[in-house]
Amino acid sequence: MVRVGIYGATGYTGVELIRILRRHPAVTLDFATSQSNAGGSLSDVFPLPWDIPLVAEGDTDPGKVDVVFCCLPAGKAMEAVAAAVQRGAKAIDLSADFRLTDARLYEQWYGVAHTAPGLLPEAVYGLPEIHREAIRQARIVANPGCYPTSVLLALYPLLKRGLVLTDRPIISDSKSGVSGAGRSPSLKTHFVETNENFSPYNIGRKHRHLPEMEQEIVRLGGRAGSLIFSPHLLPVNRGILSTVYLSVEESQSADSLHNVFSETYVGEPFVWLLPLGQLATLAHAVHSNRCVLSLTQPAPGQLIVCSAIDNLIKGAAGQAVQNLNLVCGFDETTGLAVQ
Amino acid sequence: MVRVGIYGATGYTGVELIRILRRHPAVTLDFATSQSNAGGSLSDVFPLPWDIPLVAEGDTDPGKVDVVFCCLPAGKAMEAVAAAVQRGAKAIDLSADFRLTDARLYEQWYGVAHTAPGLLPEAVYGLPEIHREAIRQARIVANPGCYPTSVLLALYPLLKRGLVLTDRPIISDSKSGVSGAGRSPSLKTHFVETNENFSPYNIGRKHRHLPEMEQEIVRLGGRAGSLIFSPHLLPVNRGILSTVYLSVEESQSADSLHNVFSETYVGEPFVWLLPLGQLATLAHAVHSNRCVLSLTQPAPGQLIVCSAIDNLIKGAAGQAVQNLNLVCGFDETTGLAVQ
Amino acid sequence: MVRVGIYGATGYTGVELIRILRRHPAVTLDFATSQSNAGGSLSDVFPLPWDIPLVAEGDTDPGKVDVVFCCLPAGKAMEAVAAAVQRGAKAIDLSADFRLTDARLYEQWYGVAHTAPGLLPEAVYGLPEIHREAIRQARIVANPGCYPTSVLLALYPLLKRGLVLTDRPIISDSKSGVSGAGRSPSLKTHFVETNENFSPYNIGRKHRHLPEMEQEIVRLGGRAGSLIFSPHLLPVNRGILSTVYLSVEESQSADSLHNVFSETYVGEPFVWLLPLGQLATLAHAVHSNRCVLSLTQPAPGQLIVCSAIDNLIKGAAGQAVQNLNLVCGFDETTGLAVQ
Amino acid sequence: MVRVGIYGATGYTGVELIRILRRHPAVTLDFATSQSNAGGSLSDVFPLPWDIPLVAEGDTDPGKVDVVFCCLPAGKAMEAVAAAVQRGAKAIDLSADFRLTDARLYEQWYGVAHTAPGLLPEAVYGLPEIHREAIRQARIVANPGCYPTSVLLALYPLLKRGLVLTDRPIISDSKSGVSGAGRSPSLKTHFVETNENFSPYNIGRKHRHLPEMEQEIVRLGGRAGSLIFSPHLLPVNRGILSTVYLSVEESQSADSLHNVFSETYVGEPFVWLLPLGQLATLAHAVHSNRCVLSLTQPAPGQLIVCSAIDNLIKGAAGQAVQNLNLVCGFDETTGLAVQ
Repeated sequence: MVRVGIYGATGYTGVELIRILRRHPAVTLDFATSQSNAGGSLSDVFPLPWDIPLVAEGDTDPGKVDVVFCCLPAGKAMEAVAAAVQRGAKAIDLSADFRLTDARLYEQWYGVAHTAPGLLPEAVYGLPEIHREAIRQARIVANPGCYPTSVLLALYPLLKRGLVLTDRPIISDSKSGVSGAGRSPSLKTHFVETNENFSPYNIGRKHRHLPEMEQEIVRLGGRAGSLIFSPHLLPVNRGILSTVYLSVEESQSADSLHNVFSETYVGEPFVWLLPLGQLATLAHAVHSNRCVLSLTQPAPGQLIVCSAIDNLIKGAAGQAVQNLNLVCGFDETTGLAVQ
Repeated sequence: MVRVGIYGATGYTGVELIRILRRHPAVTLDFATSQSNAGGSLSDVFPLPWDIPLVAEGDTDPGKVDVVFCCLPAGKAMEAVAAAVQRGAKAIDLSADFRLTDARLYEQWYGVAHTAPGLLPEAVYGLPEIHREAIRQARIVANPGCYPTSVLLALYPLLKRGLVLTDRPIISDSKSGVSGAGRSPSLKTHFVETNENFSPYNIGRKHRHLPEMEQEIVRLGGRAGSLIFSPHLLPVNRGILSTVYLSVEESQSADSLHNVFSETYVGEPFVWLLPLGQLATLAHAVHSNRCVLSLTQPAPGQLIVCSAIDNLIKGAAGQAVQNLNLVCGFDETTGLAVQ
Repeated sequence: MVRVGIYGATGYTGVELIRILRRHPAVTLDFATSQSNAGGSLSDVFPLPWDIPLVAEGDTDPGKVDVVFCCLPAGKAMEAVAAAVQRGAKAIDLSADFRLTDARLYEQWYGVAHTAPGLLPEAVYGLPEIHREAIRQARIVANPGCYPTSVLLALYPLLKRGLVLTDRPIISDSKSGVSGAGRSPSLKTHFVETNENFSPYNIGRKHRHLPEMEQEIVRLGGRAGSLIFSPHLLPVNRGILSTVYLSVEESQSADSLHNVFSETYVGEPFVWLLPLGQLATLAHAVHSNRCVLSLTQPAPGQLIVCSAIDNLIKGAAGQAVQNLNLVCGFDETTGLAVQ
Repeated sequence: MVRVGIYGATGYTGVELIRILRRHPAVTLDFATSQSNAGGSLSDVFPLPWDIPLVAEGDTDPGKVDVVFCCLPAGKAMEAVAAAVQRGAKAIDLSADFRLTDARLYEQWYGVAHTAPGLLPEAVYGLPEIHREAIRQARIVANPGCYPTSVLLALYPLLKRGLVLTDRPIISDSKSGVSGAGRSPSLKTHFVETNENFSPYNIGRKHRHLPEMEQEIVRLGGRAGSLIFSPHLLPVNRGILSTVYLSVEESQSADSLHNVFSETYVGEPFVWLLPLGQLATLAHAVHSNRCVLSLTQPAPGQLIVCSAIDNLIKGAAGQAVQNLNLVCGFDETTGLAVQ
């Protein structure tokens, strides 16, 4: 049995992670921390009958566990991760703190200096469909953001083969359920303001998930500055749908592009490529660890990829367990295969 | 033209009141106050293109207007109302501050001492279908709570004629949209917590609207202590449906009870009594000033009254304008008739 | 491994059953039928990647499986069940066809004559918390309706001990998510009609779930005719909350009543009794096989029980698997324990 | 008083039109037709207390009214419109039947031959912000589709001045509430399928609103074939948000582009251009006749226009009344100004 601990267990991501780990046959949960509910139980915070004690971060010893999951906010995770790896644990960080390899870029986007820049080079971006082998060897896995998971899996097959025209923008018009905004009440996420509404926010090149997407796009041969990313708040609890607009060579047919996706993702347990003519929707993906992809060719030279995930599962906790499975040498689908 | 001012214009009730008043042909809005947005405009606070300046309460002179509407929270309204009537304005108070005639009862339920107990005897409970004539003469109208409006209009015809068995409980199982909880963010009204959920709260005899309902029930010959009131939070923006369970004489048929309702409410512009066999729903009432009633007799001696309103209109701002019309001698439906 | 077949796999209940069975370690699915999609796959009907072939009912041999689940509509199930038991299989029927022991009562409520009245005496009402031992021995389990599950678990502890005053009505004001109405499109369940709405329907003593509830109430010593049952359509996908109003002896304190519930349900894996002061909500129950109960005493002699379930799980497919586990001698929580 | 009749009064558009006309001071409703409810009243079809008789289309005499509104489905409207103008009435057609000037294009997209092609040349596309003067003189006004209203008002200022790069695609990622799909029940609009879901449909160049948008785009100097249009079904009742992606000259600053919009729409009563830095949302537009626009420049040469309307008002019935006002010489905002 692998022993794990969770830093920041009382957000939506943390509780989703616990939900998944309770089904995982090879994991025991050693500790779960909470800043504001230390001393209490998870059942004080959520309407769930799971009497999981919540402890203060300072009262944990990461050296006693094999792997820590870090669900702390950006800026708070880097120290917990650094402490964990120093004490010999591996770390799967669900925050943004280890996603960007450039500490200055991190500071620019997140407004705080990175306190463990020396660890950045070894952190692996935890998108298994792209970085599986590196994840297996990693001491620190930087679990991707929810939007980036949906966007990058939509882009990867074509970028990898150089089939995206780099002088044109890549546009991702993305829509996310409200759990992506976290559990802290705000006017923006107040029921009456969000229900029966639909809102763009931070569109263009302003959202914090932009730099991690561009970092991967550039690694795959894409052009820096080419991504236009427009997130929207969708009045549902869960799920992201990214409608991604690309330019390709006019000679590429829908069939040939579909084949590229099909070949890239053959055997991938958590990528579901729909046949041409079908379209990915949230319902294809929510409550599962799947990324569901569909391709539509509106005109020669143009491609629309729809990419759907559950932001809390494939976009966060499920992918973190997928990474845990890789790090620990388990079958990648352990605890995740059902649904 | 009647000149009015609004204290507390930036809650859901305040903005709904402004929406209605903009259609009212005989009213000009002199001022609208906001505690946190004084100096700004209504369009800073709501996604609306109405450039209505917001002023601090201290910068208003109620003596210059004919009527003030008071949409302040309970405990904050009594001083504004007292000041207004002292300066010669009439006041329509949408808070609870003038609903209970007994200052001690007010303190017991609202946790603060009443600062204008001398005005309580003259305040008229602003449910026009019951107190129309008194409202016309009133200097202070205590606009009823949203739940009480739905419950009292369901009870009034039978209570008035002594047809409710007073030794049995009256049960109102009530369900309200989230705008009834106001615009301040909280975990309870956070989208993810409320959406796809349904929650009872303060059920039994604990909700603050209980004493004003019991006060009216007792005035109408009902028994103190007989009301069981169970509010629930419904994942919709607007609307209240109260399902009210009564005991009556076994000899009363559904037809005879329906006749009593029909006779009581004949000519009422804002009460819509459905024929037997139809049931009131939120959709019958929202976005209107209607109270929609339906009667169902489940068994001899038992009656179910379903009562639907829009909590922000008939349950607050619409009823306030109905009261304004009475106070000012306008046709009661002015500004309200449509929809 | 136990071999099972499903009649009627393409409704919401059928697909939920498949979802649960996919996690069940001791079950193999032999066949799944569909009237309109025979010859296709489950993935043609739902946005799910499960390539489960759908066959016509006539092409199945229930004699080859150990247990059949019957998710057909009322009136269609009785023949499938009769055929299954005749061929040696056990049957768990999720329709209403074997819930009422009196064939005339069945015909009166369901409008068709019962074609297998000889099997009614042996069918066991599949509410494990009440009939566990009989279920273990049953050849036919009549899986309870969704509303009845929520209401009967709220009533059972007090009825069983004779603590409910039988001369007073028992009122269940119940609210259900829309999946309870099935997957056939209708104006009532059209998105625009249901969203932002809330509707009572068949209230009083008109809903088809009334007679099965009364049958159990009478078995437990309650009075025939005492139940008032008011279902409402709630704009959520899943979940039922029943707010149940009872009369008890005035001498009964909230603590003593809570103790009765606590003693009745001690050790029950799927009943979660909340401490006094907390209230059951949909969020406590959905996506689980739990029934969550809370008690509130509004006044001496009165009790409110709030009872929440997931209508598709504890109210249908989950309870059916709980019954399967009993019938097959498995641990009762197999396949159900998580979440 | 202008006398009007409505063909097809019992869809969502028809009833919204009635709602607006009830507030219009200069209009009387002469007749309202319904195919399936002729002989009944509007209150039989909607939960509204408006006893408006519904008649069969064949029992109307359009010659007795000044203007007919035609809310029939595409393919059914052309004959009613032709009959009306023949009898001397003017016609405002909310269907697609008179939007395309090319009868062959109509047949290609709508699958039926046009029966009144001779009237197509005189029909005016009823987008007042573009064709105001022609509408004033028109005998037939082809009220635009809901999506086209949102998209064309987003494009018009820049197309008109030739500021859109025509060799690049114009992408409109559009999201619509479910009332846009009409009132006929279907699996797609079944509550459980739509709620908590979000679905692209007919994306690329397949939706029937594409040709009317392209017709206007080409009239304004844009390139045929340049539009990529991706509609999505949003789980709300009302509202459309189109997020439109354009390429412009790199030299154009956000300020200069904003000025172009500002100058184009100065004085327009129903276009609300937000200041740079704010983003249009559904909440800015629903329950009003407004089109709300915001501009975001993600990178030099790129522009994002967010355009929000209420699909039933500015996207249908409200725009139809705006057109009525133009046709009749009323102030353009009559009956529409409030909210």
